[in-house]
Amino acid sequence: MRIAVDAMGGDFGSSPLVQGALQALKERDFALVLVGDEQVIAPLIPAECKQKVEIVHCTDFITMEEGATSALKRKESSIYLAIEMLKNKQIDAVVSAGHSGATMSLATLKIGRLKGVSRPAICTLMPRIDAQKSLVVDAGANVDCKPENLFEFGIMGHEYATAILNYPKARIGLLANGEEECKGNEMTKAAFDLLKKHPSFIGNIEGNNIFDANVEVIVCDGFVGNVVLKTSEGVADSIIFLLKKYIKSSPIGIFGALFMKNVFKKLKKQIDYAEYGGAPLLGVDGNVIICHGKSNAKAMKNAVFQAILAVENNVNDKILSALEKYKI
Amino acid sequence: MRIAVDAMGGDFGSSPLVQGALQALKERDFALVLVGDEQVIAPLIPAECKQKVEIVHCTDFITMEEGATSALKRKESSIYLAIEMLKNKQIDAVVSAGHSGATMSLATLKIGRLKGVSRPAICTLMPRIDAQKSLVVDAGANVDCKPENLFEFGIMGHEYATAILNYPKARIGLLANGEEECKGNEMTKAAFDLLKKHPSFIGNIEGNNIFDANVEVIVCDGFVGNVVLKTSEGVADSIIFLLKKYIKSSPIGIFGALFMKNVFKKLKKQIDYAEYGGAPLLGVDGNVIICHGKSNAKAMKNAVFQAILAVENNVNDKILSALEKYKI
Repeated sequence: MRIAVDAMGGDFGSSPLVQGALQALKERDFALVLVGDEQVIAPLIPAECKQKVEIVHCTDFITMEEGATSALKRKESSIYLAIEMLKNKQIDAVVSAGHSGATMSLATLKIGRLKGVSRPAICTLMPRIDAQKSLVVDAGANVDCKPENLFEFGIMGHEYATAILNYPKARIGLLANGEEECKGNEMTKAAFDLLKKHPSFIGNIEGNNIFDANVEVIVCDGFVGNVVLKTSEGVADSIIFLLKKYIKSSPIGIFGALFMKNVFKKLKKQIDYAEYGGAPLLGVDGNVIICHGKSNAKAMKNAVFQAILAVENNVNDKILSALEKYKI
Repeated sequence: MRIAVDAMGGDFGSSPLVQGALQALKERDFALVLVGDEQVIAPLIPAECKQKVEIVHCTDFITMEEGATSALKRKESSIYLAIEMLKNKQIDAVVSAGHSGATMSLATLKIGRLKGVSRPAICTLMPRIDAQKSLVVDAGANVDCKPENLFEFGIMGHEYATAILNYPKARIGLLANGEEECKGNEMTKAAFDLLKKHPSFIGNIEGNNIFDANVEVIVCDGFVGNVVLKTSEGVADSIIFLLKKYIKSSPIGIFGALFMKNVFKKLKKQIDYAEYGGAPLLGVDGNVIICHGKSNAKAMKNAVFQAILAVENNVNDKILSALEKYKI
């Protein structure tokens, strides 16, 4: 198995991206292809790993400030080269923490969509109270959606949850402003009617259900999905900020907190995005994992594991079958 | 000043609703009108308060399971009577923890909209890290919106934030999937162009900005607003659930937590919805405060204070002037 990691374009340079990929290599057996500036990358690779690592040299990459469409012309950029290799079956999966719009555009246009998929979607893993994960599909790829798109998101998310997260029975919920069938906007109401065809569809769910372990696959458009992700991050960050502030402002609080280190560590681990890795781009005819620009080494390592699991479990074949089975 | 409190229809019966209203009466000078079953309400009122409290008797109320439209025919229900009194200028404001859809429908259809308002909106207060509050408009009244609706939500929220929350310069942000002007869905992009007219508009904001004290008025449609509210509640509840779980699972954690009681109390106070009271229904020609069905006495007390502030500060006159000034 050959996994390509885009070693350019993350917010913190190549180092955490390469470190994370190398950590994955220590734990799992695969061939690692690092795409990026050889002068930067090569010194980061210890001698004992060199045999398992190939560097595809390039110096260009898409910065976060650039438009996604410019990626299509930048044939010497790291993500272009990585996607090109995936298209040519030289590698089995791509992991990138670079410009996510660029990765999506290139993957969709160069590799193409799976048969039956009208729009690929980003599938983000969210923490929940039982230490398992739920999936939000779409987490940002498609801001304006049609009911059919949401229907496909549900099917793709269900197959991913079953194949990769090992849920024996993943439930699909449609994110809405109330649980009753009459709730929703015009678009989600029409999506509700389509999703009813799927035996795992449990109806409308609300924002709090994302975390309460009563649903595994949360379907929404990419605008709402992005708002949900950012809102969740904002609440978690605010609570941690306030906890720290109140602890620091009281000597007795500081004393108490010394005994709570393990508690805070466990909490941090459970809500830390780095534990989850990246977000698969579902619906393209290849395995592409999109990572947060701020990914640290741990996040990259876990993203590489996700890529390996996607390849091993033939997620895309399962999505293809499900789309064929439930087609509208 | 006369404030009517709908003493029926909350999730926990009349008691917390009446208690909260009476607590408000102890701290502020106004006449309280309680609308509901006299047999239930009268025993809850201590002798020393009786002079300031009037009971408008009725036994019917709209349950949470009923449709909002049925409220229009239920002329002997508590919320119908309260809204009718507001329409007839017998009272200055209505506070209700009953069926919010029923309250909205009755207020909109019987009292009517302010001139220049195409859709009334629910304006929910959210906690933020600086212990001030931000406003989300619309938090659930209108699931399918046009750009003009969002423009009006921004203006109404801005006037409310200035008049009631005392922000000398409240900033208006449009909730989107990215900060750049190019981000947003078709509807929010068009709303962006309209909101540009307002000098306090700062452009697109993201979900995390709701809490970071960089924006006061967050504009979105009611579908997204409801998802934001429920997601925020879900994240906060989950973190508190996990904290408790991890503390309980470790003796040393339990010991440390004993010294953290004040820290947790401060945190709870800052993120407790009851501190905020209710959500004003902006855009109707009268003061209506919609409360959570689960409102406790403290929430009801604060909701009554909100109603008093709205009357004292003539919020609706200010909204009228602003809508006239910035009209499209």
